Amino acid sequence: MNRIFNFGAGPAAIPLEVLEEAQKNLVDYKGEGLSIMEASHRSKMYDDVHNEALNLTRELYKVPEDYDILFLQGGASTQFAMIPMNIYMGGKAEYADTGSWSAKAIKEAKIQGIDFDIISSSKEDGYNNIPSDINFSDDADYAYITSNNTIYGTQYKNYPTTKAPLIVDASSDIFSYPVDWSKIDMLFAGAQKNAGPSGLTIVIIKKELVARAGDKVPSMLKYSTHADKDSLYNTPPTFGIYIFSLILKWIKDKGGIEAIAKLNEEKAKVLYDAIDNSNGFYVGHATEDSRSLMNVSFNIKDKNAELEAELVKRATERGMIGLKGHRSIGGLRASIYNAMSIEGVQTLVALMEEFAQENS
Amino acid sequence: MNRIFNFGAGPAAIPLEVLEEAQKNLVDYKGEGLSIMEASHRSKMYDDVHNEALNLTRELYKVPEDYDILFLQGGASTQFAMIPMNIYMGGKAEYADTGSWSAKAIKEAKIQGIDFDIISSSKEDGYNNIPSDINFSDDADYAYITSNNTIYGTQYKNYPTTKAPLIVDASSDIFSYPVDWSKIDMLFAGAQKNAGPSGLTIVIIKKELVARAGDKVPSMLKYSTHADKDSLYNTPPTFGIYIFSLILKWIKDKGGIEAIAKLNEEKAKVLYDAIDNSNGFYVGHATEDSRSLMNVSFNIKDKNAELEAELVKRATERGMIGLKGHRSIGGLRASIYNAMSIEGVQTLVALMEEFAQENS
Repeated sequence: MNRIFNFGAGPAAIPLEVLEEAQKNLVDYKGEGLSIMEASHRSKMYDDVHNEALNLTRELYKVPEDYDILFLQGGASTQFAMIPMNIYMGGKAEYADTGSWSAKAIKEAKIQGIDFDIISSSKEDGYNNIPSDINFSDDADYAYITSNNTIYGTQYKNYPTTKAPLIVDASSDIFSYPVDWSKIDMLFAGAQKNAGPSGLTIVIIKKELVARAGDKVPSMLKYSTHADKDSLYNTPPTFGIYIFSLILKWIKDKGGIEAIAKLNEEKAKVLYDAIDNSNGFYVGHATEDSRSLMNVSFNIKDKNAELEAELVKRATERGMIGLKGHRSIGGLRASIYNAMSIEGVQTLVALMEEFAQENS
Repeated sequence: MNRIFNFGAGPAAIPLEVLEEAQKNLVDYKGEGLSIMEASHRSKMYDDVHNEALNLTRELYKVPEDYDILFLQGGASTQFAMIPMNIYMGGKAEYADTGSWSAKAIKEAKIQGIDFDIISSSKEDGYNNIPSDINFSDDADYAYITSNNTIYGTQYKNYPTTKAPLIVDASSDIFSYPVDWSKIDMLFAGAQKNAGPSGLTIVIIKKELVARAGDKVPSMLKYSTHADKDSLYNTPPTFGIYIFSLILKWIKDKGGIEAIAKLNEEKAKVLYDAIDNSNGFYVGHATEDSRSLMNVSFNIKDKNAELEAELVKRATERGMIGLKGHRSIGGLRASIYNAMSIEGVQTLVALMEEFAQENS
């Protein structure tokens, strides 16, 4: 097999070891005579997988006991609606607008008809930074941020401090660095970037917040429904949770989230150095203090779309895919989530250097 | 491999050919150098899978052009809330209550605060039949039925006729027989019984109904959001849709839904004959005219729980699992969805006959 380097933004690369383990067990799970996909969600066979995923999430991410870990469906986009439905209490919610995903969350708050403020936005700057003036009110019903902006390649280096419950959309950087739970009241992510296949949403939420929802919230959209039943109120996405559990084991084998975080810093440094040392041939989208360790969005000088397309093409020929930037900003984007190896990044950088020399 | 016969109610058996094909391609999808699980939902590689699943659904199920086919998440349980949110127009909705799943749908209508009537119920009979007096009003906003009741083993032989839009929860019998679309305005199912792994919900809905929803419905819970974007508004459960597409190909290879329906009738006949010819040792739960071809729920005479447990144990020893009845009615249940072979049913019947002789 000629395995490619997948720089796609999501669904994204999954560690080869995880795929191989899943493949080995796909038809006959550990000699049980059936696939894990076919197992009842009430069976011991599945239950072990479910509990392993829950337990490893708590262990590796150091989630305190007063937080529930939920396995839901519908992606972050469904959370955008569930958050106001469940957490809003009739006061004011506050959002920081740092990219398309924050904007979508805000759109759903609007549809819900709640009272909210956008307390800071980098929209005017083409979302190229995390604003430094994010000051949430301590008495807000909740404060909302997007920790990493997949499209624009920006990322919070520190979460804002507030007495209001802080809600973090970590869809594109969950499990990529240790987090400080004393600052966070809810953190959620679609699994398909750093934690598995699409179709699984991970929600880690303080029990206090779970209890907030009123009677009018539909059962499936109510955090307490799932918290009360350990995410087995209805049939969860069992196969996705299985792959997620394998990814968590892989993280553990690598030395945990702390070790992964170090690797992520190294990988990002190699790539940003290549941009910074290109004599202006490559231009990063994010301001330096807001650079994402997960998504590196950049252009070729003068936003030369022809050269950008040529580089994407050349990369594909060398077994590197997913490098085309999001249509909203163009250019290139290298997503270097947990599963991307340093070798992948080095291979890309080698091509970038060669390409810059040829075309400077 | 010693493949077991899986009589579980869901997640349920998947055809071995499908699992083997998925296994072969799990790490390296058709030589592309990555897993389908890792492919962007905007890539050509995934797009082909997505379109194949859409096209085969339309072709095999003979879905008319004025219906949208949607791939959603959250299971039937999420549909219970989405239906009143999207389809209710301020008049009256009507429900037929034929089991736990209808009751759950009704509960969500209540939470939504809509005006509705339960026009017929078999609850007093322990849900052992599909009532013959289901007469929906022609001017209802919608009329709601559960075509097959997984727990109680009952199934509609004909859908009620009404001028009101008929909504069918076909979670446990989708693709098991051809349906008459002239009677149906919306049909939906969680995939995990007859159509794939859990985490995928299939919704087939008349375009007229898609257009009904108002401004206050959250984007992800609005049928039009997904219809407008061919179920690619956000990241769909790509791997589940891939397995679903393989199952559709398997159905096609078997001769289509008409051929599958014939097999399902044969399988069910073998099992019901065994019950009927047991001199009262086995007692079916459903009345004869309401018997499900998908879930056969039965007891041993006098609801002898000890013998029932012994039979389940004996079956497990012989490689048959998932036969324990649902906790709400006890006894045994054999789920014989599309993927269950006639050999599986015959093996079960052989044991049942032997067991009846021993214990009569």
